[in-house]
Amino acid sequence: MHLQLREEKVFKDPVHNYVHVQDEIIWALINTPEFQRLRRIRQLGTSYLTFHGAEHSRFSHSLGVYEITRRIISQFERADYADWPQEERLVALCAALLHDLGHGPFSHSIEQAFQMHHEDWTCKIVLGNTEVGAVLRRLGEDFPAKVAAVIRKDYEHPIVVSLVSSPLDADRMDYLLRDAYFTGVNYGTIDMDRILRMLRPFQGRIVVKESGMHAVEDYLMSRYQMYWQVYFHPVTRSSEIILRQIFRRAKELHAGGYRFAFLPDPLPGLFNRDLTVEEYLLLDEALVQTAFMQWRKEPDGLLSDLCTRFLDRKLYKYVEVEVLDLEMIDDIRSAFEAAGLHPEYDLEIDFPTDLPYDVFRPDGEFQDKQILLLDRQEHLREISEVSDIVRSISGLHRGKYHLYYPDNKLASVIHRLPANIAELFEQGQ
Amino acid sequence: MHLQLREEKVFKDPVHNYVHVQDEIIWALINTPEFQRLRRIRQLGTSYLTFHGAEHSRFSHSLGVYEITRRIISQFERADYADWPQEERLVALCAALLHDLGHGPFSHSIEQAFQMHHEDWTCKIVLGNTEVGAVLRRLGEDFPAKVAAVIRKDYEHPIVVSLVSSPLDADRMDYLLRDAYFTGVNYGTIDMDRILRMLRPFQGRIVVKESGMHAVEDYLMSRYQMYWQVYFHPVTRSSEIILRQIFRRAKELHAGGYRFAFLPDPLPGLFNRDLTVEEYLLLDEALVQTAFMQWRKEPDGLLSDLCTRFLDRKLYKYVEVEVLDLEMIDDIRSAFEAAGLHPEYDLEIDFPTDLPYDVFRPDGEFQDKQILLLDRQEHLREISEVSDIVRSISGLHRGKYHLYYPDNKLASVIHRLPANIAELFEQGQ
Amino acid sequence: MHLQLREEKVFKDPVHNYVHVQDEIIWALINTPEFQRLRRIRQLGTSYLTFHGAEHSRFSHSLGVYEITRRIISQFERADYADWPQEERLVALCAALLHDLGHGPFSHSIEQAFQMHHEDWTCKIVLGNTEVGAVLRRLGEDFPAKVAAVIRKDYEHPIVVSLVSSPLDADRMDYLLRDAYFTGVNYGTIDMDRILRMLRPFQGRIVVKESGMHAVEDYLMSRYQMYWQVYFHPVTRSSEIILRQIFRRAKELHAGGYRFAFLPDPLPGLFNRDLTVEEYLLLDEALVQTAFMQWRKEPDGLLSDLCTRFLDRKLYKYVEVEVLDLEMIDDIRSAFEAAGLHPEYDLEIDFPTDLPYDVFRPDGEFQDKQILLLDRQEHLREISEVSDIVRSISGLHRGKYHLYYPDNKLASVIHRLPANIAELFEQGQ
Amino acid sequence: MHLQLREEKVFKDPVHNYVHVQDEIIWALINTPEFQRLRRIRQLGTSYLTFHGAEHSRFSHSLGVYEITRRIISQFERADYADWPQEERLVALCAALLHDLGHGPFSHSIEQAFQMHHEDWTCKIVLGNTEVGAVLRRLGEDFPAKVAAVIRKDYEHPIVVSLVSSPLDADRMDYLLRDAYFTGVNYGTIDMDRILRMLRPFQGRIVVKESGMHAVEDYLMSRYQMYWQVYFHPVTRSSEIILRQIFRRAKELHAGGYRFAFLPDPLPGLFNRDLTVEEYLLLDEALVQTAFMQWRKEPDGLLSDLCTRFLDRKLYKYVEVEVLDLEMIDDIRSAFEAAGLHPEYDLEIDFPTDLPYDVFRPDGEFQDKQILLLDRQEHLREISEVSDIVRSISGLHRGKYHLYYPDNKLASVIHRLPANIAELFEQGQ
Repeated sequence: MHLQLREEKVFKDPVHNYVHVQDEIIWALINTPEFQRLRRIRQLGTSYLTFHGAEHSRFSHSLGVYEITRRIISQFERADYADWPQEERLVALCAALLHDLGHGPFSHSIEQAFQMHHEDWTCKIVLGNTEVGAVLRRLGEDFPAKVAAVIRKDYEHPIVVSLVSSPLDADRMDYLLRDAYFTGVNYGTIDMDRILRMLRPFQGRIVVKESGMHAVEDYLMSRYQMYWQVYFHPVTRSSEIILRQIFRRAKELHAGGYRFAFLPDPLPGLFNRDLTVEEYLLLDEALVQTAFMQWRKEPDGLLSDLCTRFLDRKLYKYVEVEVLDLEMIDDIRSAFEAAGLHPEYDLEIDFPTDLPYDVFRPDGEFQDKQILLLDRQEHLREISEVSDIVRSISGLHRGKYHLYYPDNKLASVIHRLPANIAELFEQGQ
Repeated sequence: MHLQLREEKVFKDPVHNYVHVQDEIIWALINTPEFQRLRRIRQLGTSYLTFHGAEHSRFSHSLGVYEITRRIISQFERADYADWPQEERLVALCAALLHDLGHGPFSHSIEQAFQMHHEDWTCKIVLGNTEVGAVLRRLGEDFPAKVAAVIRKDYEHPIVVSLVSSPLDADRMDYLLRDAYFTGVNYGTIDMDRILRMLRPFQGRIVVKESGMHAVEDYLMSRYQMYWQVYFHPVTRSSEIILRQIFRRAKELHAGGYRFAFLPDPLPGLFNRDLTVEEYLLLDEALVQTAFMQWRKEPDGLLSDLCTRFLDRKLYKYVEVEVLDLEMIDDIRSAFEAAGLHPEYDLEIDFPTDLPYDVFRPDGEFQDKQILLLDRQEHLREISEVSDIVRSISGLHRGKYHLYYPDNKLASVIHRLPANIAELFEQGQ
Repeated sequence: MHLQLREEKVFKDPVHNYVHVQDEIIWALINTPEFQRLRRIRQLGTSYLTFHGAEHSRFSHSLGVYEITRRIISQFERADYADWPQEERLVALCAALLHDLGHGPFSHSIEQAFQMHHEDWTCKIVLGNTEVGAVLRRLGEDFPAKVAAVIRKDYEHPIVVSLVSSPLDADRMDYLLRDAYFTGVNYGTIDMDRILRMLRPFQGRIVVKESGMHAVEDYLMSRYQMYWQVYFHPVTRSSEIILRQIFRRAKELHAGGYRFAFLPDPLPGLFNRDLTVEEYLLLDEALVQTAFMQWRKEPDGLLSDLCTRFLDRKLYKYVEVEVLDLEMIDDIRSAFEAAGLHPEYDLEIDFPTDLPYDVFRPDGEFQDKQILLLDRQEHLREISEVSDIVRSISGLHRGKYHLYYPDNKLASVIHRLPANIAELFEQGQ
Repeated sequence: MHLQLREEKVFKDPVHNYVHVQDEIIWALINTPEFQRLRRIRQLGTSYLTFHGAEHSRFSHSLGVYEITRRIISQFERADYADWPQEERLVALCAALLHDLGHGPFSHSIEQAFQMHHEDWTCKIVLGNTEVGAVLRRLGEDFPAKVAAVIRKDYEHPIVVSLVSSPLDADRMDYLLRDAYFTGVNYGTIDMDRILRMLRPFQGRIVVKESGMHAVEDYLMSRYQMYWQVYFHPVTRSSEIILRQIFRRAKELHAGGYRFAFLPDPLPGLFNRDLTVEEYLLLDEALVQTAFMQWRKEPDGLLSDLCTRFLDRKLYKYVEVEVLDLEMIDDIRSAFEAAGLHPEYDLEIDFPTDLPYDVFRPDGEFQDKQILLLDRQEHLREISEVSDIVRSISGLHRGKYHLYYPDNKLASVIHRLPANIAELFEQGQ
């Protein structure tokens, strides 16, 4: 059964000023241990090592996504649009609030190291024997399944999915604004009020009134800039590499029967890829950092060195390379090995667009990646047909290879490297 | 030996836009493990449980204090004021940067629980066999002692102390602006540029040009508001109480010979109040939170319950009381005990102005608590002589008693409490 | 008959982001010539001569007051408060929009010089044979009279008056924010969202929830600072004095039969204090400035010099005096006259609190000057009973005497003044 | 002879916080009647009819350009760059301050109507027998000529020209920020601090360090957006058309011997294109608006109607057309004439890119239109070679034809128009 709160509650939020909670169910979800755990997971992983202000948590981002969704829906309700299914309000709000619930500590790095997907965990938590699950079931036995379906993007009402997950969704709007605010980088400031005013529910999806085109252009440019200025920042990438190497090394050691002096639950389960939901929820960034602190004392020099690098921010340096083929990589790795360096731990190759790159690409195969403009005659057009600027950035695939390496180690052996390779690394930063 | 960096380095900062580093020594200090550790200590302790944006670290605050000090000094140098001892620049900058180096996790609470003072630890780290110490010694064997003297406020040049520690210092200006920014509370926005323009070195201290009086009034009002809106917020106080109770309980248990399943170094040393500098530097908020996570599984119900409360943000409720005397407190504690509650853990009494309250009070005994205005005839006047508004807020000592208690426990026994006491708690929030 | 617009219209506003228009009547009022005329009247009169950004018009302020009123009412409607008379919505919105309609060019100065009151003109325009009147009459023959009554503060529903005109009304909130924005002075930034959330219609007036007390304190402090930093700025006062002297001189000349080379309608009517509404509406700041440009060529040296001073910003200098009595004034005027200066035009005495000073004073005789707090038990208390800070600023009456004079003229005769008087003016600025 | 002010003066500025004046010559220039006149010329002409906040004057913009130039130079001096000619400081500052001195009322429209160029007037004022000229001559008889040469872009030190007039100059940076601030449109917020940090004097021009590329991309995108959102806004264009028609009509009437009831100096000289510098300086927007007010009473219906339209903001409506050729235009004009409309006054055709369009185009013939990046090896590259995003926007030439017309007149004869033409205008806005 659903109830309004007797009196609206608010959270003071630096980005949206206030986050407004009007429904008892939302209030109850926020107060579950599973949602409170998001306070212990940073929104931007290791970016705080590049931008010291970026300490903000997934808790605050989740509230923000909820708030934007709430504002959109309340506007749809006020205008009484026929294409908005009013009975879907709470499904949408709950999905918006909970969509990041399954993120683990330093999410992207840990996912790569242990082949996990945070969406899976989100759905397990929503559907499982958790407090979140219990709260959701108050709205009906099938309510958790509805919320999970929105998160998995296969809900029967695609318009609800479109609100929470599309190229112009509440998630992306919140993170652009929030990450810009906390890093201090001002490329992410978008005219959210205007974009919200221009959104329309139309034939099962959220589209944009044509007169909002410039605001959308500006939003896409902001995203583009934030990707290159913040999300793909080479110093952040360097710290992610260290992190991944720590996880990799610890997993290797554990698999080889190594006995850690410090390995509290649920870390063994994580290494064995055998975690219950309950155990998964014990994972947070405090635990990971504490493990790193303790592992500095482990006899394995590689592990200990990597942990020290991460904690003391002694990151790998890098060189940028425009072109790189497999043969060159092999040559470098061989030369490294011959010089006494580790061919893998001492050389990481990174190409930013390898990442799940979600700068808007209209030629994607999935129609749900498109932003559609609605003109006065109620015709829809994909934005890059109309906007020169969007068309021109859609084809762009920037990115250079970055070779990351421990500069102190390299320095001591650089005279042993072939001249062309030594030269390459001599301009490192 | 002191060197300029070949090229200035900058940190992107949301509050000051950029933090500029021009000196090699500053760059080297920032890159020490001891300074990097401040990334793992929050600036506002548990305030993030009230204001979810307040996740910012002492690392970012320390950079901010350094930057403000740098701007003040560079302005003094540009104007070439006779009363500014130019040779003290680096002492001042280092002291500004390092003044919070000795803060522990959840600083105020842990200091109370274990009778420590962060200034002592700061001095020990500065003077000790640490990387910070080593970097400082590059400027002379006695340089660490100078920096420590500024931090202890007994440096031979009081004007340097005045820059870093006075009612209008770089420390307070940064934290007002920074805490306002990250909490989202806009009471802390002061016209720092104007205040900086109005500062003058004068006869061994920093004073303010008379025409800056309104900017100072505004700054004092902002501080006043921030104290009551943020620093003394009852929800934050509630979380500090839980935290202190956890430390108290764990210490009691440890003293009684209890064997914790999870008690990695340096926690035993903390409990025994026997920590080396090296051990102290291992303390951070990640470790404390991880310990709480693990202690949830301890058989001691009180400890386990308190840890759960902290992590899941199930804080104590409170009632506000205007008047409270010792007899009433005794009555309530007795009634609590008779009803089966714990007379201490289940009732905490808090009076915000008990705290080290540094809203400006000109009648303080220490002259260094005063803000002095410099008029055109080079006469100094204490600001409350000139400003009605400062005079009127100087005498104010607001504050009410707050009684904090676990509402679920109380609810189950409230029928056993005397009517007047039951009634008191019935309006709790 | 009242109609909603088919589609909401918006104005981009730097202060409120967007001003939303939903009612046809509001749209029609904005498009009347009488309302468009407000574009040619500055909000802050001559303040642009002190703060060059302060060029904003009463047009933008009027839209802002309307928008704040709209937000308050829409919140009252959403919460469905019993004490808000929903049928008064349009009366309130129209009164908010039109409340400054009768302002003349450089309003305060022209009012003083010609004994007019802008409220009278506002009512005449609203009630008269104007386009505004015609639009209002679409809602009923008595509708203009209702709007005029709200503006005159004698409307039958005092709660409507309270919205538009009270110590915490939409007018004051808009001008604080707007004047702070355009001057660039950051003392005027208040947490309007929070104040709006705290307003309640209660027993015929607007009161504030007790938990909004700090936000109101901050608002009153901001007003206090804006008065002293902006509204009473001595340079602005100096320019107002020049302006008033120009009007006075021109009126004198006209009364004496002087023939101006340039005196287009409706200036003769203004001088004769005999203006129809239609003529009054021809007055704007463009006309006044153009007259001054042309009057530079008039043979009357005094008038011509004053016009030049105003246009070229050659303002009077001033000295500040703490104490001043009538005898001293007489002495100075006599000394001026004896030295060949004009005893009135060359000396103006100004005491800022002579002005209609609306910093909040709870001891005022009028109950409608009070801000009332509503506690949980629905008791009302006047804010200064509860807030130390409000109580302490309520009694303050700051202000010093300022003597304004033309420094070039004075300099040439200063040797002829008695020593004590000469000395007084020697510290002028 | 050049002197520093004894104490720095500041202007409070909403965009740059403070404008700092350290040189007596700058202070003296600001206080000339010629510079003060810029207070009576709006920065954005008629844009205030679209964006009501855009009332800011060329006075404030000129101070802003000066301030940015001052900051750049002071940074060059601090870094002691060999390629910056330090003795050019004052020439550069004066040119920055004075570069817009010759703007007339509603500059672009009046220039078109009377074939004038504001740069010519700027040079005449600088070189002439004016107070500005007198102040400049204090620095040497040839000093005014130097300043004029910078403004005419043929100064012997092209680096000085580059500071004040290039695709990334102080002028453009100030107007983007200032116009964004006062309109409230947030597309113009650029990271000026970062751009300034990246500027380098290099081989006779100002270039950008390569690592500043993203900041420059963002700046060019902001300009692009501001052009389409603000500068080319169709409502603003409509008001400019009305303005131009008023000037055209008045000129026609005057040429035909028509006797205006209101035509004070220097308007006759303007119509005859025969103005001295002294007369030109009497032109301001107050005079133009006053003339329009008075001309409403002129018997010429066309003039009177146009003046009313401008003052009461009854602008022309428009329709957008993607393709338009001369034949179609002829057809429409003929149809208009046949239906009793005026073929010219009642139909204006506008194509925004007809305007001097200064969105960055690297393929321009003039090398001084290029932005050059300086890499670590001190090689220069034109930015669009390096930046995909700049390359992709460089080729863009957006723009549609807009047909402007008086909708009330058209409505009354639309049945007399051929069907295809009538249909075209039926979707007008």
